[in-house]
Amino acid sequence: MKETYMLTTSSAVKLYNEIKNYPIYDYHCHLSAKEITEDKTFDNIGQLWLGGDHYKWRLMRAAGIDEGLITGQANWHDKFTAYAKVISKAAGNPLYHWSQMELDKYFNIDTPLSEETAEQIWIQANAVIQNRQLSPVKLIKMSNVKYIATTDDVVDSLEYHEKLKDVSGFDTVVAPSMRFDKLLLINRPDYKEYIKSLSEQTNVKITNLDQLQLAVLDKFRYFCNHSCKFADIGIPFFPDTIDDEKAAARAFENALEGKPATRSDYSAFLRKMFLFIGKECKKNNIVLQLHLAVLRNTNTKLFNRLGADCGADCIGDVIEGGKITSLLDAMNSNKGLPFVILYTLNPSMTAQLAAISGCFPNVRLGAAWWFADHKRGIREVINTIAEIGYIDGFLGMLTDSRSFLSYARHDYFRRILADILAGWAQSLEFSGNTTEIAEDICYKNIKNLIFNIKER
Amino acid sequence: MKETYMLTTSSAVKLYNEIKNYPIYDYHCHLSAKEITEDKTFDNIGQLWLGGDHYKWRLMRAAGIDEGLITGQANWHDKFTAYAKVISKAAGNPLYHWSQMELDKYFNIDTPLSEETAEQIWIQANAVIQNRQLSPVKLIKMSNVKYIATTDDVVDSLEYHEKLKDVSGFDTVVAPSMRFDKLLLINRPDYKEYIKSLSEQTNVKITNLDQLQLAVLDKFRYFCNHSCKFADIGIPFFPDTIDDEKAAARAFENALEGKPATRSDYSAFLRKMFLFIGKECKKNNIVLQLHLAVLRNTNTKLFNRLGADCGADCIGDVIEGGKITSLLDAMNSNKGLPFVILYTLNPSMTAQLAAISGCFPNVRLGAAWWFADHKRGIREVINTIAEIGYIDGFLGMLTDSRSFLSYARHDYFRRILADILAGWAQSLEFSGNTTEIAEDICYKNIKNLIFNIKER
Amino acid sequence: MKETYMLTTSSAVKLYNEIKNYPIYDYHCHLSAKEITEDKTFDNIGQLWLGGDHYKWRLMRAAGIDEGLITGQANWHDKFTAYAKVISKAAGNPLYHWSQMELDKYFNIDTPLSEETAEQIWIQANAVIQNRQLSPVKLIKMSNVKYIATTDDVVDSLEYHEKLKDVSGFDTVVAPSMRFDKLLLINRPDYKEYIKSLSEQTNVKITNLDQLQLAVLDKFRYFCNHSCKFADIGIPFFPDTIDDEKAAARAFENALEGKPATRSDYSAFLRKMFLFIGKECKKNNIVLQLHLAVLRNTNTKLFNRLGADCGADCIGDVIEGGKITSLLDAMNSNKGLPFVILYTLNPSMTAQLAAISGCFPNVRLGAAWWFADHKRGIREVINTIAEIGYIDGFLGMLTDSRSFLSYARHDYFRRILADILAGWAQSLEFSGNTTEIAEDICYKNIKNLIFNIKER
Repeated sequence: MKETYMLTTSSAVKLYNEIKNYPIYDYHCHLSAKEITEDKTFDNIGQLWLGGDHYKWRLMRAAGIDEGLITGQANWHDKFTAYAKVISKAAGNPLYHWSQMELDKYFNIDTPLSEETAEQIWIQANAVIQNRQLSPVKLIKMSNVKYIATTDDVVDSLEYHEKLKDVSGFDTVVAPSMRFDKLLLINRPDYKEYIKSLSEQTNVKITNLDQLQLAVLDKFRYFCNHSCKFADIGIPFFPDTIDDEKAAARAFENALEGKPATRSDYSAFLRKMFLFIGKECKKNNIVLQLHLAVLRNTNTKLFNRLGADCGADCIGDVIEGGKITSLLDAMNSNKGLPFVILYTLNPSMTAQLAAISGCFPNVRLGAAWWFADHKRGIREVINTIAEIGYIDGFLGMLTDSRSFLSYARHDYFRRILADILAGWAQSLEFSGNTTEIAEDICYKNIKNLIFNIKER
Repeated sequence: MKETYMLTTSSAVKLYNEIKNYPIYDYHCHLSAKEITEDKTFDNIGQLWLGGDHYKWRLMRAAGIDEGLITGQANWHDKFTAYAKVISKAAGNPLYHWSQMELDKYFNIDTPLSEETAEQIWIQANAVIQNRQLSPVKLIKMSNVKYIATTDDVVDSLEYHEKLKDVSGFDTVVAPSMRFDKLLLINRPDYKEYIKSLSEQTNVKITNLDQLQLAVLDKFRYFCNHSCKFADIGIPFFPDTIDDEKAAARAFENALEGKPATRSDYSAFLRKMFLFIGKECKKNNIVLQLHLAVLRNTNTKLFNRLGADCGADCIGDVIEGGKITSLLDAMNSNKGLPFVILYTLNPSMTAQLAAISGCFPNVRLGAAWWFADHKRGIREVINTIAEIGYIDGFLGMLTDSRSFLSYARHDYFRRILADILAGWAQSLEFSGNTTEIAEDICYKNIKNLIFNIKER
Repeated sequence: MKETYMLTTSSAVKLYNEIKNYPIYDYHCHLSAKEITEDKTFDNIGQLWLGGDHYKWRLMRAAGIDEGLITGQANWHDKFTAYAKVISKAAGNPLYHWSQMELDKYFNIDTPLSEETAEQIWIQANAVIQNRQLSPVKLIKMSNVKYIATTDDVVDSLEYHEKLKDVSGFDTVVAPSMRFDKLLLINRPDYKEYIKSLSEQTNVKITNLDQLQLAVLDKFRYFCNHSCKFADIGIPFFPDTIDDEKAAARAFENALEGKPATRSDYSAFLRKMFLFIGKECKKNNIVLQLHLAVLRNTNTKLFNRLGADCGADCIGDVIEGGKITSLLDAMNSNKGLPFVILYTLNPSMTAQLAAISGCFPNVRLGAAWWFADHKRGIREVINTIAEIGYIDGFLGMLTDSRSFLSYARHDYFRRILADILAGWAQSLEFSGNTTEIAEDICYKNIKNLIFNIKER
């Protein structure tokens, strides 16, 4: 990778070189504790890249590739070749940048990927996988990752997080995060089964909302005992400002009987649960991450064939600011406002969320997320936080990925960050210490938040 | 026109020179088949520019020009002079760029237009019109246009499209597109007359929705027999997700009696009609173009004086993403999803539409439209498609214009496109073949879509 | 301040030098006529900067500064030092730019502000305040301000505006603007008291809406007698399109009895009042400024402690374009459309408002406001007006500030404006006279609007 990649001035190159080797604290991702524990060497780059990455699947579909070569029966070699063909014309797409950076960083390959070079890169990359024994632990070490917050459903077992503690020679902290989506999506067909499983695990009989909360309290204890520092909600709904105990209870009890909730009952349920989760996060020094404005499973045919997370999710609608401030204010008024990070898929909300964040203590706009996680999107978030918030308080990058190669995205982020900060310094719009600010953003802020959370 | 116009690097100039002479396939415009057939030489540049261009009228009004000099009784010379005065201070406006480019491309005039130069340019331009016998056919040939999709109401006669086939020495394909706006806007005062006309043309008695659809089927046949490849909807409404046969029928039947439809009945009608049109488009290999988020005829006084399309339309509100995905999903689930192009006037929807497009096969974000069709707007669309979609699949530019001079906008677009692609290549963010991508976008994608539509 | 600050080309520097000394007509601010009249020398830079500026308070809170050092009991020296510490890492924030520019312009200090330099700057700045006797009048003169439109509630006394006329050696016009927010926010707890005060001042008994309007008419006369040229509304609501006399009357009469209005009644009241205010503005040649999309007092704990305008306001939700056009159209249809300036806090509305403005005579998009008033935000507004409207008609900058140092923001604006215009000229995208356009925007347009308002 050329030293000046994404860097437009010599001062940007200088700043980047100062910050590029900082450690990584990956405070939100979808990596698997099980895969880290088992630490198998990967088979080939096709599986590594295309086994589960719905970003790549979407791009291939948009390019008209047959589904068989995307999620179908084709072998990894052919899937990889199809991807190579597509990527060679995917100018401006973050997947182009990431693929290029991953090949460089982990495989020392700087040949541009295309249909013509696919065979050669297939052989080279697979040789590296075998020779270096590329495995989850190997990649984590190569990437200088000190901390990983995985994403775990409330009912998920944390056995592999426990096992990981005993793995010798591996000192990256891998801690679970509580993900509440399945608990909150009460209209799913398997919701009753889900609650049954929660009930069995916690030994709490769950027939009403109070009991549900008792069970969840038990889960908070369980996760906290496993060093959980983050909770997370990413459902495609945000509660209207409806405080109605009876409606909330009704929504949940109906769900247990398989009856759909009305919109207002569901809002009352969600609002009550968000406030409850917020209060418990505050009590347990857990940071609450809200992933806003997502629309999921929009293509029924694809969903029926492949299930969730297959590439048919998209940017959701803008959420009314008044609903968000009302929720944060309700938490805050009851001394229950935890540290909150707000992410949005819809770039039309970015400025508003930055402004909302400044109205409450310890609420922050999060990093560019998913569809926004490209060069211009990252620049937009950094600029907006700088303009409307306080850039030195930015918590920086996370991978939000299922792939162990995705740590290259931290490098991507650091290049873009360095370019912006150095640009301000070079034009004399800023005369302070850009290295210190970059250090805070790259890892110090999030490290302090994780390990000194009571000192806030 | 300076060779480097809108081009910021030498590699951009190089790429532009490679692509500037590609043919034009203008897949959405408001040119008149009648005017092409009759092929009259224009009177003067005043008439040519100001006879029907509501873009220019708006700008003149914003500059405080008297309406008499805009749409009133003043002569073309005085109107042209007034426009020249305004344009000399319209920095940053696409009309400035386009006027400059049109004078250069078709009249070989590179004097900046202003009150002072107006007289001289008036004389020069009119001399060119006379000397070169500038006419529709002349301008189409000068612009290397291979294909024109006009916009025709469902009840419009296509006689001039037929006549055009017999014009010797003119081998540009001029095909009609089906525009459904008048059919769908059931609350217009003249709707009953409109349906009467449809009934007479098709010999279908129309007293209910089934009969309406029978008549429209007849029109699909008529348009397809005239090589129609595109359908188009551009109404200021988008249906809520209401599937209700009775409500849909009621809305239409009430309309025939001059009774207004409720919002929900109207939604049911629209949804049913959108699905019906989508299914027929799919069946007939017609590409469906949806022009979203427009607000029309906002100024009642101006509307009463000048009618529609006079310059009092504006950017409409953001449409809920869930409504759009629900419509596309319903089409898709019934195997009725045609090739769809989504345009939006509201730039706050651009990213979301790009994400939605990726959830379905053969749905694309369209080119920057109308108020967004300026340098930054075009850059925004190109960047967004690259980031969230697949740039090599972009269908490229169309004129959406009533003027035969507007082909200069393709040049405008190609300069901007070349500047972006070459910029990525120069900074090494992209190492692939930018000429091939530009070629696909400039004409190959749309050409393939038009002529090989079954091969998709 | 370096001559090239914010200027990226030599032609931008040249243009900036041509326009930097133009006079200032500050047509919307929150300066106090009383403070100008009394003209006290300031105590110190801590008080001057941190006494009332909620922009700075927000930034300090975001940086985790203790509230005691923000709005609490700490002394000015310590508050200033805390601010200095924060600002040294506030890269990209407009407060960084403004603080730097104010130190340069009014104190001749070019040392970057930080914790280390705070003590030295404290001493230097305070010495300047004492030596130069820095006071409101002194700062206004230093800034070449010709006109100031203060913001005054409908029931505010204008005695200090009268007294100011007698101050010798001070020839800046200081005129009041009518602010209608308190009159329109009928659900406030002290609304009855407010109406009582209006009644006493006008000698109109107010028990219904007709009487309210009579009293307001009296106030229009009072303000017009004091050279009022601007009216202003900045409430966090915009009326739905409900024309209902009874509902409007009911909302107001209930308010007098302390009963809350329903949303639809409140909308009817607001719509009726907006139309009434618009008509009177038109009649009296008053420019109506609408500040849209604000969400106020979101943090109840902070509001209970510090009241309004403490830093817990934020960007409001996008307002439906149809509501705005419907209001403007209703005014326009009744010959009651005054000159209107539309501001928005929500950048997602900018393009739409620019398009709406072009549909009516004398409606303009206003300058970047509050959270949008930073380099990129200003650039966005200038570009959008240029693209969708007419840049030469732009009314230019205002301070919207409570601080006499804020005139530095005009310099900030002029640098950004010069950079854009000169950029277009340098790239040959524009060949006209940029100095004339800049002159119109910097002060001529607003000066003409203020002093020749009937000539429009």
